[in-house]
Amino acid sequence: MGDFNTESWKTIAARKKAEQIAKLPKEWLITPPAEDVLNVMRHSCGLLSVKELEITGVRDTVVLLEKLAKGEWSAVEVTSAFYKRAIIAHQVTNCLTEIFIDKALAWAASLDKKFKETGKPVGPLHGLPISLKDQICIEGMDTVMGYVSWINKPAKHNAVLVDVLLAAGAVPFVRTNVPQTLMFPETFNVVFGRTTNPYNRSLTPGGSSGGEGALIALGGSVLGVGSDIGGSVRIPAGMCGIYGLRPSYNRIPYQGAMNSSLGQECISSVLGPLSASLSGLRVFTQAVLDGEPWLYDPVCVRKPWDESEYKLKKHGHGEKMCFGIMWDDGVVKPHPPVHRALKMAKAALLAAGHTVIDWVPPVSHSVLRAPAMEIFYADGGENFYDDCAPTGEPLLKSMAPDAPPAEQLDMPFGAKPMNKGGTVPEPLKPLSAYELWKVQWKLRDLRKQYLDGWMATKEKTGTGRPIDGLVTPVAPYAAPPLGKYTYSYYTSFCNTLDYPASTFPVTFVDPALDAPQPPHTFRYPEDEIAYNLYTSPDVYKDAPVNLQLVGQKLEDEAVIGMTEVVVTALQAHKGSS
Amino acid sequence: MGDFNTESWKTIAARKKAEQIAKLPKEWLITPPAEDVLNVMRHSCGLLSVKELEITGVRDTVVLLEKLAKGEWSAVEVTSAFYKRAIIAHQVTNCLTEIFIDKALAWAASLDKKFKETGKPVGPLHGLPISLKDQICIEGMDTVMGYVSWINKPAKHNAVLVDVLLAAGAVPFVRTNVPQTLMFPETFNVVFGRTTNPYNRSLTPGGSSGGEGALIALGGSVLGVGSDIGGSVRIPAGMCGIYGLRPSYNRIPYQGAMNSSLGQECISSVLGPLSASLSGLRVFTQAVLDGEPWLYDPVCVRKPWDESEYKLKKHGHGEKMCFGIMWDDGVVKPHPPVHRALKMAKAALLAAGHTVIDWVPPVSHSVLRAPAMEIFYADGGENFYDDCAPTGEPLLKSMAPDAPPAEQLDMPFGAKPMNKGGTVPEPLKPLSAYELWKVQWKLRDLRKQYLDGWMATKEKTGTGRPIDGLVTPVAPYAAPPLGKYTYSYYTSFCNTLDYPASTFPVTFVDPALDAPQPPHTFRYPEDEIAYNLYTSPDVYKDAPVNLQLVGQKLEDEAVIGMTEVVVTALQAHKGSS
Repeated sequence: MGDFNTESWKTIAARKKAEQIAKLPKEWLITPPAEDVLNVMRHSCGLLSVKELEITGVRDTVVLLEKLAKGEWSAVEVTSAFYKRAIIAHQVTNCLTEIFIDKALAWAASLDKKFKETGKPVGPLHGLPISLKDQICIEGMDTVMGYVSWINKPAKHNAVLVDVLLAAGAVPFVRTNVPQTLMFPETFNVVFGRTTNPYNRSLTPGGSSGGEGALIALGGSVLGVGSDIGGSVRIPAGMCGIYGLRPSYNRIPYQGAMNSSLGQECISSVLGPLSASLSGLRVFTQAVLDGEPWLYDPVCVRKPWDESEYKLKKHGHGEKMCFGIMWDDGVVKPHPPVHRALKMAKAALLAAGHTVIDWVPPVSHSVLRAPAMEIFYADGGENFYDDCAPTGEPLLKSMAPDAPPAEQLDMPFGAKPMNKGGTVPEPLKPLSAYELWKVQWKLRDLRKQYLDGWMATKEKTGTGRPIDGLVTPVAPYAAPPLGKYTYSYYTSFCNTLDYPASTFPVTFVDPALDAPQPPHTFRYPEDEIAYNLYTSPDVYKDAPVNLQLVGQKLEDEAVIGMTEVVVTALQAHKGSS
Repeated sequence: MGDFNTESWKTIAARKKAEQIAKLPKEWLITPPAEDVLNVMRHSCGLLSVKELEITGVRDTVVLLEKLAKGEWSAVEVTSAFYKRAIIAHQVTNCLTEIFIDKALAWAASLDKKFKETGKPVGPLHGLPISLKDQICIEGMDTVMGYVSWINKPAKHNAVLVDVLLAAGAVPFVRTNVPQTLMFPETFNVVFGRTTNPYNRSLTPGGSSGGEGALIALGGSVLGVGSDIGGSVRIPAGMCGIYGLRPSYNRIPYQGAMNSSLGQECISSVLGPLSASLSGLRVFTQAVLDGEPWLYDPVCVRKPWDESEYKLKKHGHGEKMCFGIMWDDGVVKPHPPVHRALKMAKAALLAAGHTVIDWVPPVSHSVLRAPAMEIFYADGGENFYDDCAPTGEPLLKSMAPDAPPAEQLDMPFGAKPMNKGGTVPEPLKPLSAYELWKVQWKLRDLRKQYLDGWMATKEKTGTGRPIDGLVTPVAPYAAPPLGKYTYSYYTSFCNTLDYPASTFPVTFVDPALDAPQPPHTFRYPEDEIAYNLYTSPDVYKDAPVNLQLVGQKLEDEAVIGMTEVVVTALQAHKGSS
């Protein structure tokens, strides 16, 4: 049971991993596809029954909930089917952490019992299996979150969100993999290992909620919960071709979940849904808010689900809206497939009767990013070191599988070199509290400038309103090769500003349409690094391409509503073109 | 024009004060009452006309707004009358800072013009003169905020709140005095001097919005705006016998106003109204929220005025509610007049059909206060020194008129002794950003415990709900003698927790009813200090006694609604007893 004084971190981590493997039911083990089979999306293991394929074939959360609410399928049936498929997904992408089949089935059975007694569903999420990122504590269970020193420390309480979901009738059923520190847009840690992208296992599934992305894309879950402080919901959703939502600060209860950089409250991490269907984002958000989380989380915003905002009352009721399109953030130029996706969105929106205008950030994103990085690493990364120190686990500097050992695995026990490696950008020094306040104050001013710039578009939209929403890339690329995802400010600017944002699938990389372009004048080193990642579309074979829709602070409902408008327009336009 | 390099801070401050005096219209100068006239509330200067007395005699904001909206009185008439009365109030309590009669009358005239053209009021606050604490910037005007180094630095923009108020038809007309640093519950700075309590000028008007308290009590304004990070709205309202509201964080736009400790975002200062009438709190809050301040302030909460919450939909529609009463916070025992006010509130609530239960804080207030103090002074007070340094102005250690010179006025130019004096509690050391995060995280846990304790009262209320609101003292005392207000955690715990809170007048100190009590066992040094402040009720002659009503985070509307219930019950019970 992990004695940190005498055992090496490798021993402790290996035992935890072995315990996980032991929890995979023998009868659910598959013959894994060969390592060089990159796309496992259509891999057939032959293990799922017709009924299980029927159940897990339902990708739309609302449809699944209807079947459950009518009693057509029981909670145990649905949970069992998704559990089996999740375990299969795990065997091809390594997406899971905690496995607790008995506990999940007991919850499901209790729901079925109540349903039998009352004839009605327990709540709006009755019987729905929900996967949870490896931060969201369940009583009695480890929350490893990628740190060896967190092994064998079972949670004393459920996270508030877990209680709210249980009360709504949901069945938390697996926990999913993350990167050490949570501050990487990829998914690797020394306990549970690396998660890969099911569309192409040489590519990253994104991160930090990468386990969720891979699991949901593979049909092992229709709805999961991740966290997002710089894109950690939207990046894996985007890389894995599913839907995701970064809600505004403190809308979804974080209380009782674990996190990095605890007490950093200026740019807050938020919890948010990833889903196989757009309906999942709405259903989750509404159900959680209907659970009045502010009664249990002391910083939650008391703002019930607002149906009129979802129906876009403040946005012309969804008619003749005007969207901004950010073709390029001015720092890193998007790759051809991403540019094509933006053109598809523009054409679809115009065809649906909306207008679009080009969005040039009112504050340069390189300027906006600077204080955000200073705030993220104001402790000089010390909290990361503190969580590595008890076992001597190395603080990872890179997510690359081929990173030199010094960058991955060989920091001596107890060494605590401030600002050396890990996710901490080298030039950032630990700040004093007063210095931190000054950076936070500077950021406030930039937030004001950005807001004013958004509001000033009123003169250009022709709707009498500022732009209703902003359509942007999720990343400058489709899922890049493992270890190569380095620029996340296409998502992160929303966290800096606290703008809610969704991501939704648009297309796939297509070598015929997405030829590499000649080099442009590189604005920043990151720009050149990203350019050089697209020498051949073949590297990105089968990779999905998502886009992002951004709204104003606390317009979570409207962002969901506008995403429906954009997705509907894309589907209609695809059909017609 | 204040050359900080060659002139002493005394010279610069004296010139600013002389400029202020020069702005008082000669025809509005009064023969001031003798210094030993303590109560100036009924001092008649003979300067106000019958019409001016009629106008400024209207204490209820809604009644005044009705007269204006009907065109019975013009905005210029009303603004002129209140300006004159404000200038008179200033001459007896020194409550004003910036005086700008021409600008205010120009705004008023423009409203009258529009009213004439359209036949209707410009907005919900049409023609209402509103006083502003000396932080709330008006374009082209100094915002001195008690610092000599801020003299002659005219604001480039209006604060967002000023623009919102102007759009609602209000007339900002005076700015009001504050203590240096804003971190004292009294009102003195070396530029504008000391504000006194109009009920008894040997007593403090409270602070930091003390100019507002004195001005509004004297009828020089019916509605003003203060700020509150530890009680700075509620303390002066409480000490001066008027109404006040501390809204939740970021409900009222702070953008563009000045402040101390800029960038400290964990326990946020908030802007809120002080008013001669309870209706003023509602009218102000609703009008500002109707102005959609989140369109102009990047951190404002997008939560419109909720009439159903104001109507107490979540609190049994205001029928048969259950209130907690905090007789003692466990740190400093309230004086007899405050205890009597609580008993009056209890009796009135019972008589009105509500129930009350005793409230024992679920987290000791001495425990809760510790991280709050560490956060407030995480910079070791350096931001205060930085604002004193340019002129060598001393950082004040005390608000006492008889403080030794070393504590008030003689710190050598440029001296910057960390943690020496001023409002910074001696033992507090400057923190690193990481230490600050840890304190903020600890506070989060305490907030959760406090919330859980509140929710757990559901078992005791008999309503099926937790306590609807909490009735507490504003302070352990009625307004104490100048310089003696030292314990502000009766208000400050609401800031620590982000619980909205109002204050409302209940009674006055009555030597016949409020005899000093024998000493109790003192729990803390502060307890003994406070006890020794009540050796004779005569010291508190004519002092008002207010109470406080506290609700849950973002229940601002409900707090206003519940305050109406309590005030109505008190009035009814007073009538019947």
